[in-house]
Formats: sequence, structure tokens, C-alpha cells
Amino acid sequence: MPSNQQILLDNRPSGEAVAGNFKLVSSDTPALADGQVLVRHHFMSLDPYMRGRMNDAKSYAQPQALGQVMGGGTAGEVVESKNPKFAAGDKVVGMGGWQEYSVVDANQPGALRKVDTTHVPLSHYLGAVGMPGVTAWYGLVKIIEPKAGQTVVVSAATGAVGSAFGALAKARGCRAVGIAGGPDKCKYAVDELGFDVCIDYKEHKDAASLSKALKQACPDGIDGYFENVGGMILDAVLSRMNAFGRIALCGMIAGYDGQPLPMSYPQLILTNRLKIQGFIVSEHMEVWPEALKELGAMVGAGKLKPRETIAQGLAAAPEAFLGLLKGKNFGKQLVKLV
Amino acid sequence: MPSNQQILLDNRPSGEAVAGNFKLVSSDTPALADGQVLVRHHFMSLDPYMRGRMNDAKSYAQPQALGQVMGGGTAGEVVESKNPKFAAGDKVVGMGGWQEYSVVDANQPGALRKVDTTHVPLSHYLGAVGMPGVTAWYGLVKIIEPKAGQTVVVSAATGAVGSAFGALAKARGCRAVGIAGGPDKCKYAVDELGFDVCIDYKEHKDAASLSKALKQACPDGIDGYFENVGGMILDAVLSRMNAFGRIALCGMIAGYDGQPLPMSYPQLILTNRLKIQGFIVSEHMEVWPEALKELGAMVGAGKLKPRETIAQGLAAAPEAFLGLLKGKNFGKQLVKLV
Repeated sequence: MPSNQQILLDNRPSGEAVAGNFKLVSSDTPALADGQVLVRHHFMSLDPYMRGRMNDAKSYAQPQALGQVMGGGTAGEVVESKNPKFAAGDKVVGMGGWQEYSVVDANQPGALRKVDTTHVPLSHYLGAVGMPGVTAWYGLVKIIEPKAGQTVVVSAATGAVGSAFGALAKARGCRAVGIAGGPDKCKYAVDELGFDVCIDYKEHKDAASLSKALKQACPDGIDGYFENVGGMILDAVLSRMNAFGRIALCGMIAGYDGQPLPMSYPQLILTNRLKIQGFIVSEHMEVWPEALKELGAMVGAGKLKPRETIAQGLAAAPEAFLGLLKGKNFGKQLVKLV
Repeated sequence: MPSNQQILLDNRPSGEAVAGNFKLVSSDTPALADGQVLVRHHFMSLDPYMRGRMNDAKSYAQPQALGQVMGGGTAGEVVESKNPKFAAGDKVVGMGGWQEYSVVDANQPGALRKVDTTHVPLSHYLGAVGMPGVTAWYGLVKIIEPKAGQTVVVSAATGAVGSAFGALAKARGCRAVGIAGGPDKCKYAVDELGFDVCIDYKEHKDAASLSKALKQACPDGIDGYFENVGGMILDAVLSRMNAFGRIALCGMIAGYDGQPLPMSYPQLILTNRLKIQGFIVSEHMEVWPEALKELGAMVGAGKLKPRETIAQGLAAAPEAFLGLLKGKNFGKQLVKLV
């Protein structure tokens, strides 16, 4: 059995997450039991939600257990199978976690999914044609429900979720406005991702200033908003929402370190008769086939060109993850293992 | 033509509303044109939303115009009619405003509605069987959509909206928990309105303390919340919401004087996958017939016994209204004019 490098959660962050919260260890992969599959991970996904799981707080997910391999999405290749549905060489996507190999009970529904890499590169199944893409799809299609001509806004616009959101919104005839950090990301959002405008939030010191920029970028107001960030950005967007606007609340990365993150004027929900809905895409598995079909077709046709930031080797994962939390990545953050 | 006492909005509040914002004047009622009806108001409704309209701020409603009669619901009797659909002696409900008489263009849809006072006293058409009752109905039935056995909570529980909410929730097999100010109101909520428990928010100095009381009152958590108040109470309820809970946001009376009223932990919307929806009942006229039918039947059958606080005479309206904003009323606040 091959030796398997793994990254465990060693201790929980107090405030900001740091590299010392993680620990790199090595173990042998166990022998396979009937029904199991050994997967070699080619790519590991790093996602903002993982920061939430590092806290020992009541949340939608169980906290990441201490001393255990960090959980997370993986894309790789079957190297050995004791399951008739999988054969060595199959390209698969699963939740293998921060390690080089995983042993998967492949009879568990949803544990392992074969993917076709003819038109879509394997890594994209962790991004645009995977969980982040479906997240964007669900928020846009099921919560925001935009009509053609309406204006929709997304924060973290060049991230894995945001870039899919932009493409999906344009395909529905919406005005798509992004919010991102820095001129490079904003230029990329417009030139490559198809956003109509992208606002650099780093140019704005407070919600009032960002609100002014949003007014210019959204002359007809905002009908739908997909929130990944929270805090000052949410305050600014709330001030520009149209009556009967919808907000899909998917992430509040600005508050993951435990700092207070109040919504300054919840009265706006009332005066503008808004709907704000939190969701987690893994609770809506029924939409995945439809969403993945659309996303796969968009990527295959070149209508969605997701950008990736790729860290090399398992040991690079903690720093890459901490960078992601600070917005240092550009597009989908991955770790390449093979 | 009879002389008509009226109360105008004379100037806008800066901060707290005061009696000096209003002005009592007298004028003659004009002669009727074809299609018009002269209504003598027996009861005037005082409602928290009126405070919002006194500000010159962007909101769902046009601000109350300065120098004009304060708007508001009225119940009364037709004294003269040049409209074939109405005759002298008809009991009617409309939006006559803070004055003794109103001249109504009765052909305008929804401007004037005949009501039957055989089983339901006229004044209740401004409360349980009127706008406040339908408000409770819409929030409960259309936004919270409770299942039997679920726990629903309402703030301002003994008010016109809250008392109807409690009765409607019990009729649907819910656990109904009220929040109100003071032991008398809480006792009344349980003994007369049928709430399972009522929490006195005045016993709690902060959201953490109120949250503890809610935990006791709602051992299975909170599935639905109807918000009339905002601020500390909303923070406390948010901390006890179950996954997939629904919050109908109807009023935030705690912020009507313009003070900041932040929501401290909007992250809870995400972690508990909540839906928060603001609404205004006048934008959902399609539900009024169904709602009024249920509410009228409940009042007629004695299953909803709405309490009223009645101020005497038009001149008493400003003080009664200011008292309402401070929770001095007990049940529906009315002004009796005849």
C-alpha cells in the first residue's frame, strides 16, 4: 500500500487561522475491504467554508474534528477497486480531504462520482462544474430567480462561485455586476468573465462610499445579490436593493475569524420588502444534475472560462488556504498533488 | 355641511415623535360630487407604521405630506351618498385619516368597504378583522408556513397583530410563544389570547438574557418568527431559530425614531439557512378575502378576543399615538369619535 501524506487539524484558531493549526503526517493506506475504492487525488479543493468548520461552534456542518484529516473536495483517479462500479483509471470526484489518497466506501450514495474529462478538465469538477458552480446556480436560479433585464450583483466575483454566477446571469439576460478586490481581478471579471461592471471594494473605505459606486454601476438598482462576504459589502448592497429584491446568503467570509459582523440597517429588509435566504448547496442535491449539465455545457463551449490558482503539493495547502481567506487567490484555489 | 375637526402633520420629528408634530384644525366638509360619499368616522385606527411615514425618508410608503391630514384607517357610517353603491346608514371601513369626516370617491377600488356588524363589532374591522389581522395572517400563512407542532414566536404579542397571530397559530396546531412588555400583558397573552407562554422582555437587559428565556419557552427551538420590533429582540430570537426557520419582518418599531438598530449576527441566517422576508400587507390584496373570512369567523366564534385601548375624541389622538409607540396601549389602539 502506498504511503499517504495527510494534513490534520491539530488545534483550533483563536481569531485568525494560522499555519500552526494544521499538522502534516504520514500513514500507510489501509487494505481495501469489499465495496471500497482507493483513489489517488490529483487535485484538492480549498474553499472558504472550511474556515467555518475549523471553529468549534454550532453551525450547519459538524465542526472539523481535531486530529482528523481536514475534510474537502478532491478530484483524482481510481488506482485500485473492490467495487464493481469503479475500475482503475476512472476519473472521480469525491470528498477525500487533505491527503494524497483516500479509501472510499463507494457504495455510499454520493461518495464518489465518475466524471468525463473529454471536454472538461478534471480540476474544473472542483470548481465551475462542481460544488462552487452548483452553489452559484442554486443561489441565482432558485433564490434570486432573476428575470431578463434585471440587475444582479455578486461579491468575490472572480472566485469559483462568483465567476460561475456571472456567466449564469449573463446567460439569463441579466446585468451582472461584480465586486472584487483589486484592479486586476476587476479587469479580469469584465474582460474574461463577462461581467458588465466590476467594482474594486478596496477603493472604498466604508459602506457609504461603496454604495455610491454601486449606484453608478447599477443605474436601475439591484434586484438580486449573491453574498459571499458580509460586513461592509452587504451593508452597501442593501442600501441599493430594489423593492422585492432577493439576497442569496452563501458565505460571510469577513466574519469567519469570529469578529462581529453586524448588518447595520436590517430595516431595509422591511422597507424594501426583501427576501434574504441562507442556503448550503449540499442540502439541495436534487438540483445538482440540472446545474452540472448547464455548467458543463458552458465550460465545454468556452462560455465560462474559470481561472485557477494552483498550489503545488500537499504541504502547500495550509498557506494556500490562508491566502484564500485573505483573497490572495485569483479564481478557484486548488492544490495539485500529482 | 358639518364642521370637520382634523389633525395635520405640522412638522417632522427629529428623533422621537412629539405632540408638537401635529396640529388640530377645523374646516367645513365640502359638498359631494357625483360618486362621492360622506362618511362620519366612529373609530380611527392608530398603527405603528404611521411613525415611519412621519419621516421624510425613502420607504415603502410615500412620506406623510406636511400640512395634510394624517392618513390612517377609519371605521364609520355613511351620512350622505351620491354613489348608488352606498346609502346613508351603511357601516363602512376606509382610509379616512385623522379627522371626524371624510369625503370618499367610492368608485375607486378598495377606497370604501361595507362591513357587517351583526357578529363583529365595528371597531374590530380596524383590528383583528382588518389590516392588522390580515398582516398576522399573511406573515404566518404565506411566509412562516408553519406545520402543526412547530414553534412560532411573535413580538408585541398583545398588540392588534400579535393577538391575531397567536390565535391563528394555535388554530394550526403550533406552539405559540409571545414576547410582550410587562407582567399584565404577558398574563393576558396566556390567559386570554391562548399563547402557550409569553416572555416579558422588560425583565431582560440584553439579548443574551432574553435568549436564555426563549430557550426555556421554546424547548424545541423556533421555527417561525413574526417580527414587529427589531433590535435586541430580533437578536435574541435569531439565536434560537431552528435550521430552515422563517422570519416574517413586518415592523421594526424599535428603530422608528432613527436610532441605529443593527442585527448583530447575520451569520446566523447562513448557518441556520433561514429565510427572512419583509412584507407589507397592502401589497397582497389577493389574500384579504380569505384572511378576513377566517379572522371574522374566529372573532364571531369567540376564539379570538381582541382587546382594545380606546382614546376619546380626535384631540386625544396624538398622545394616544405617542403612547402606542412606547407600548402604553394594551391591544389595538383606537380613537373613538362618536
